[in-house]
Amino acid sequence: MKIYDFPIGPYPARVRIALAEKSLQSQISFVLVDLRKGRHKQAEFLSLNYSGTVPVLELEDGTLIAECTAITEYLDALDGNPSLTGKTPREKGLIHMMNKRAEIELLDAISVYFHHATPGLGPDVEIYQNAEWGLRQRDKALKGMVYFDEILRREPFVAGPSFSMADITVIAGMIFADLVKLPVPPSCQALVAWYEAMKQRPSVSNRVAMSRLR
Amino acid sequence: MKIYDFPIGPYPARVRIALAEKSLQSQISFVLVDLRKGRHKQAEFLSLNYSGTVPVLELEDGTLIAECTAITEYLDALDGNPSLTGKTPREKGLIHMMNKRAEIELLDAISVYFHHATPGLGPDVEIYQNAEWGLRQRDKALKGMVYFDEILRREPFVAGPSFSMADITVIAGMIFADLVKLPVPPSCQALVAWYEAMKQRPSVSNRVAMSRLR
Repeated sequence: MKIYDFPIGPYPARVRIALAEKSLQSQISFVLVDLRKGRHKQAEFLSLNYSGTVPVLELEDGTLIAECTAITEYLDALDGNPSLTGKTPREKGLIHMMNKRAEIELLDAISVYFHHATPGLGPDVEIYQNAEWGLRQRDKALKGMVYFDEILRREPFVAGPSFSMADITVIAGMIFADLVKLPVPPSCQALVAWYEAMKQRPSVSNRVAMSRLR
Repeated sequence: MKIYDFPIGPYPARVRIALAEKSLQSQISFVLVDLRKGRHKQAEFLSLNYSGTVPVLELEDGTLIAECTAITEYLDALDGNPSLTGKTPREKGLIHMMNKRAEIELLDAISVYFHHATPGLGPDVEIYQNAEWGLRQRDKALKGMVYFDEILRREPFVAGPSFSMADITVIAGMIFADLVKLPVPPSCQALVAWYEAMKQRPSVSNRVAMSRLR
């Protein structure tokens, strides 16, 4: 299998963490898509993924699977051990809910802030910016951190008793916050402690180190 | 089981169509959340769903599952027959990809347009609007229609050879387009023909009729 991505990116980190958790890295060859040169918005890449985002998984038969949740579903269904997306209906429902909530309230919000209210990937790539919307999303992300902090005061993981895709998405949010130097609100001690614990997982420590090599 | 929703809403339609496809409606009691009165943004409802969106599924044990994809995953995992989320890894990956793409490029884009560049739910509910962003999202949705039209020129369904969650999300986008009177580009004949075919499904015809009773 082949993955098109940009190694320091927070979204690519989601899939690379999932791959490491499932010990599937050796089955993948990676193809660099240089976001700083805007390659993800050019026709060649758009033919792989209409939405112009990385990562994209290409199967041996040429099937293309974009979107982190979809790629994680694919990888997890290959054997489901350990399970990242849940086994029972209730687990699946809760993991998908918290995964989506982590996107809406944290990761995607920081991404919009980055692309719209900071220089982002630079003027050649960020050809349209809406700073007001970007700042609004930054505030949403800070509020999202407070929400996840409340969850992690009560629970060891984001979506129930074990590590899941939802944890990975919050981790990606924290990686992105670090990249854009968005400070975690001081009240969020449980979130910070959980993130420190997550960094002890080899799947995560490699990603965090990578995102600092920029 | 209980579902908190607003019957004419396009997002609630996603779950109601899934329920009908799986013949599970009789197991659900519905609780009205009056979006026009902003009930979904008030403390009582926010304690059910932090993101302040409908629908929310409440299980017999009190477990709350928000987000349409998560609810559909839950319902589909109860028996998986017919399957809306796929059975093989490849099916799951493709359905989740196209479902997410239908959100990003169509349904969510129309929703942002509605809430930000039209009166939306009215001045008491729409306390912050960013019209420029809303109009940008409208244009994205129109482009999204052209994309899905291209898919449906080649395939009978949005994500492969059978009806799935991804079709439901595009249907919800078309319902929302109709609600906000967003005209489908004239070139999108395959999309329009597919939507007409979808309306022949009892699960869909009831929803389309409902969204017109406003």
